[in-house]
Amino acid sequence: MADTITLSIAEAEALLKAAFTNIGVPDATAASVARALAAAEAEGQVGHGFSRLTDYAAQVQSGKINAAVEPVLTRPAPAAIYVDAGLGFAYPAMEAALDAGISLAQEMGIALMAIGNSHHCGALSIQVERMANAGLIGLMVANAPKAIAPWGAREPVFGTNPIAFASPRADGPPLVIDLSLSKVARGKVMAAKKAGTDIPPNWALDVDGNPTTDPDAALTGTMVPIGEAKGTALALMVELLAAALTGSAFSREAGSFFHADGPAPRVGQTLIAIDPGHTGAYGARVSELLSQISAMDGARLPGERRQKAIAAAARDGIQVPAAFISQANTLAGE
Amino acid sequence: MADTITLSIAEAEALLKAAFTNIGVPDATAASVARALAAAEAEGQVGHGFSRLTDYAAQVQSGKINAAVEPVLTRPAPAAIYVDAGLGFAYPAMEAALDAGISLAQEMGIALMAIGNSHHCGALSIQVERMANAGLIGLMVANAPKAIAPWGAREPVFGTNPIAFASPRADGPPLVIDLSLSKVARGKVMAAKKAGTDIPPNWALDVDGNPTTDPDAALTGTMVPIGEAKGTALALMVELLAAALTGSAFSREAGSFFHADGPAPRVGQTLIAIDPGHTGAYGARVSELLSQISAMDGARLPGERRQKAIAAAARDGIQVPAAFISQANTLAGE
Repeated sequence: MADTITLSIAEAEALLKAAFTNIGVPDATAASVARALAAAEAEGQVGHGFSRLTDYAAQVQSGKINAAVEPVLTRPAPAAIYVDAGLGFAYPAMEAALDAGISLAQEMGIALMAIGNSHHCGALSIQVERMANAGLIGLMVANAPKAIAPWGAREPVFGTNPIAFASPRADGPPLVIDLSLSKVARGKVMAAKKAGTDIPPNWALDVDGNPTTDPDAALTGTMVPIGEAKGTALALMVELLAAALTGSAFSREAGSFFHADGPAPRVGQTLIAIDPGHTGAYGARVSELLSQISAMDGARLPGERRQKAIAAAARDGIQVPAAFISQANTLAGE
Repeated sequence: MADTITLSIAEAEALLKAAFTNIGVPDATAASVARALAAAEAEGQVGHGFSRLTDYAAQVQSGKINAAVEPVLTRPAPAAIYVDAGLGFAYPAMEAALDAGISLAQEMGIALMAIGNSHHCGALSIQVERMANAGLIGLMVANAPKAIAPWGAREPVFGTNPIAFASPRADGPPLVIDLSLSKVARGKVMAAKKAGTDIPPNWALDVDGNPTTDPDAALTGTMVPIGEAKGTALALMVELLAAALTGSAFSREAGSFFHADGPAPRVGQTLIAIDPGHTGAYGARVSELLSQISAMDGARLPGERRQKAIAAAARDGIQVPAAFISQANTLAGE
């Protein structure tokens, strides 16, 4: 590919970390953010990778992201953890929640991790997979700045409010599901805008609630949810679990994940870890079902493309647009 | 309405209970099943009400439903409850799970209730609402006999695998969401078959994976999922949570909910209760968001029709087809 530079995952992490530390982000936080962006890049979720660097950096520099804050963890009930991200990055808060929550779920059978006053959480797949790698079923929801209208309305209220799930299995890597509740990711509309192309008429609605092929009209309007009224019901469910339960801003109140100015997003993330250990042969049963599906003519399992991307990245490195590498080098002072 | 008989909810419950006790169902179990069917009827979910009576009764009489069994509750971990429904009715098992699980969630912050070796669970709304009435956020998933194909495949693997959610709010009854992952309920196809009418082409696929308007072809084929690949990913998530985690049969292995013969369904249900008490003003925040949505032009909130049906049923009673009343009277020996 022209205009890309190939880096190993370790090189990508090191470069991203250097960029953040050089603008004053504390070492441990810079490492956490760099790890998450490089991991997203490795699994092919480029919208949650290097492309976020300059926006994150500008928000650190404007103070919209409080990069110096340490997440504060409390345990309001025996099986529940609350993490106040303090308007800092989401990644160190999620790491703190999972460091405590994984062992808590192993002890209690189930654990709740509610993260409030947070920011963009990137690829949820990475967080739920961490639970599954520890032998737990992982569930996660997150809210995000407004993009989807309630059913019948035209004004955006819900974010694209993703749901993610991971499960261990006996004979392979965890099954990982990670999906937003809009028909297509908002990033695809932004990409079309940048490329100057139209979008298909079933992706988004304009401010009057009519289908539009114009990316600008789509970005000021709303994203079409999956499953019509059912999708907006799921988006409301995520909104209450991710925002209300964590004491965070609703999607309609949340500041942008991109702009350096304006209010902080102050969104929330809720994770649930479940220990299937009491179930006889859980992992073997999961493997059995997934194998049966894989053997079906034409069937596709969620996460197959992701697994291939991760394997390819580990083997061959990741291809990063040269412009992003140049931005990272500039921030890193090199 | 012609050919319907109006009953109060209490009368409906008493009639259903008499029908079950007269065919040998123990008193407490008969009461539990009658309560659930009458409550489903009251909220307008007629597919989970009186229409189930003769199929349930035939399965009791054939021994496919072990009506005499008592659900066995264990607590494999401090915040986790497992209920073995013992191939009996689902309703007493869910009641036992919630009797223990609601107080456990209030103590632990979150509680898992996994119900295995179970049967048709009716309207999930009733179970999640019970958690919300106790001040908890309620989540529930269930698997069901196969109806939906994995993405790209033609053979059914997943049930319509519903997801339900309920949340308390400060100034009104709980918000209740209850949705299956098929575009339309399978019951609508069965109703079209009974009525001898075609179905719209976007409801179901025939055995070759092609859209069909023929109810028979639909019933031997698969139901179209919501949200395309995303809907089938959610169906897989529900399958693992409801069946694998509870040690139950996968949807593709599950016996029919309707026929008197054949293997027992042996499906599972998983419920999660979360105490939002640690969150400042949770109920008030929920009310705030729901009020904002309600005030929007054209917006509809999930559960509005259900609330109206419940209020009307409490005020005016429920209208039950005379044929169902006659069947109930016959079973009750009257």
